[in-house]
This record gives sequence, structure tokens and C-alpha cells, in this order.
Amino acid sequence: MKRSIGAKTLVYPTPTWIVGSYDAQGRPNGMVAAWGGICCSDPPCLAVSLRKATYSYGSLVERKAFTVSVPSQRQVKEADYFGLVSGRDTDKFAAAGWTPIRSDLVDAPFVQECPLVLECKVLQIYDLGLHTQFVGQILDVKADEAVLDVAGMPDILKILPIIFSPGNRVYYGVGESLGHAFAVGKEI
Amino acid sequence: MKRSIGAKTLVYPTPTWIVGSYDAQGRPNGMVAAWGGICCSDPPCLAVSLRKATYSYGSLVERKAFTVSVPSQRQVKEADYFGLVSGRDTDKFAAAGWTPIRSDLVDAPFVQECPLVLECKVLQIYDLGLHTQFVGQILDVKADEAVLDVAGMPDILKILPIIFSPGNRVYYGVGESLGHAFAVGKEI
Repeated sequence: MKRSIGAKTLVYPTPTWIVGSYDAQGRPNGMVAAWGGICCSDPPCLAVSLRKATYSYGSLVERKAFTVSVPSQRQVKEADYFGLVSGRDTDKFAAAGWTPIRSDLVDAPFVQECPLVLECKVLQIYDLGLHTQFVGQILDVKADEAVLDVAGMPDILKILPIIFSPGNRVYYGVGESLGHAFAVGKEI
Repeated sequence: MKRSIGAKTLVYPTPTWIVGSYDAQGRPNGMVAAWGGICCSDPPCLAVSLRKATYSYGSLVERKAFTVSVPSQRQVKEADYFGLVSGRDTDKFAAAGWTPIRSDLVDAPFVQECPLVLECKVLQIYDLGLHTQFVGQILDVKADEAVLDVAGMPDILKILPIIFSPGNRVYYGVGESLGHAFAVGKEI
């Protein structure tokens, strides 16, 4: 028997990503986002949802571009800091000791220190209520050499991304391998 | 220096969810989905993206409803199985030993054995390309008593959701706590 918890945004896992953008003055800004995910394979697209009240919102609308930088669990303090203050009155990059790098593909900066970054062009903007969803076409994924496996693909156990848990609002790391997709189910 | 990996859907973490629906004959069906995430807090909404070729696609369009059942890492074989075969010719629930429970809020079934389920009414359908995004309003979240914490909220370390890693297509568990959101960043 399941207990009803109500109409809440409680689902697991959700990500911890830094959404990077330039403001009207060209200053680099970033915010932490957990409301998002891949939404299409072809064209490759990722969606992030922002409240209109955020400083980043106007930047994404204006520049039609954003980046997603995936912080490592070693960077949980910096990542969380990007959700604590506003880019309106704070240079978050400087305060956190992070370096904004201008994307050569889209009009947005990514975080040099994060092991994996995605450069996205805004394809669609959907006003859903408190949040507005930005669907971004992924134009490139860039990764530190140190987090690539022997096949040249990103290794999640080297990236060590941060998992956000809604409800108790706690960050978690990634655990052990549970097996290969499209494979372990063949035992059924 | 970052290495370019190309325009791919490589980001971490992504979820492993079972999207439940009824087909035209009223038969319960489910599929595994990693392309999705929360997309709005008010109204509370979750998005999942399905290829038009999936059997579930027509069910969501027709019934304007779906559920998301969050499997535990103990259920990784069953979850993966739901991505290996099609509901067109297979009763996946019966084969996996899972029980479809009719939602009393939306026209879709959830998986009784999964520790956490969300019941969603389709609000928007966005055709993005290979995938179509279904934005569902979360009408209720239901959880097994066993996965609730002392405050009556879901505990991710009791749910033990499955993380999907695109690229190498491997499932992972959840790791250790890294600290509280909106808190650990205050040390910056």
C-alpha cells in the first residue's frame, strides 16, 4: 500500500548543472539547475527550466544560447554557491574561483573547471507556469581529457556528477555500477 | 584544455524511469525512459520524451496520461527489460513479474513494486524531432511507507533509484551524501 504525498516535484534522480549565460552587459553568469534533462536524440537537445525571476532567464531569452557545465562532486560547494546568490549583483565566477570561457559555438560561457560542458542553442521556449523551459540544441560536448575512457567517451565515474534529491534538498554522489543497459534485462 | 566529443546527448546524471500507460485495448504497458526531468514547480510538471516509434507514444497521445514509476536498484533487471521488448506483442508486466495498478487520478497504470510513483496528466505535447516531449502535470506522488523518512518524505537512500549513464549505457546506483543544497555553498 502506497502513501499519497501530494502533487509535488519529488522524483529521483535529478541533476545538478550550472547553466551559463551572458547578461545584457556581456558579463558571464551562471546558475545551478536541477530541473532539466535530455529531451531529444535527433537533433540532440537538452531542456532546462528557469524561473522568470532569475537573472539568467532574461539572458537566455536575449542571447538564445546557454551552456550546461557538469560539476564534479569535488565542486559541490562551488555549484551550490551558484544557487545561493544572484548574478544581478555578484560576479559568481570570481567569488567561486571559477573561470568563464566563451564558447566558440554559442553566445554563452562555460565553466573551465567543470569536467564536462555542453554548448546549446535555444530552439524553443515554453512558458509552463512558474518555470519556463528552454530547449537547447546541443552543438557540442566538451570534456577534460582526464574524464575520458579508453574509447574517448566520458566516464561517469571520472566525472563524478552531483545528484540532487528534491524534498530533503541534499546532494549525492554516484554509486556503483549496476550493469549494462539493454543487457541486464535479458535475464528476464 | 577540453576535447570536443561532438553534438551528442552526453550529460550526467540521467534518470531510469518506467513510463506507464494503457494501450487502445486497455492493456497496461510500460517503457523505460532516461530522457526526462522535472520542468516546472507550479504547476508541478515532469517531462518525458518518447520516440514516435514506441508503442507507448500512441497511448500517451490518446489517453493524455502517464505514470512514472521509479525503480530501485534492486529492480535493475526488470527496469532494463522494459526497454528491451515492445508492448505491441509482449505483456511486459507479466513477463517481469510486476503488477500494474490503475491510477485513481489519471488513465494510466503504475508499477506496484516500484517504491515511488508519480501520476501525470498530459498538459503539453512538443514534437522536437526524433523524440516528442510530453509535459505531464504531477497530480500525486505515492511512495511505499518503507522509503519514507521520519518527516514522511521520500528518502533517496531508501528508494535507491537507478542512474543511467549515456554513452557507455551503464546503470549506476546513488552514492554518498555530499551535503545540503542552499547550505554547503555558504562556505564560499
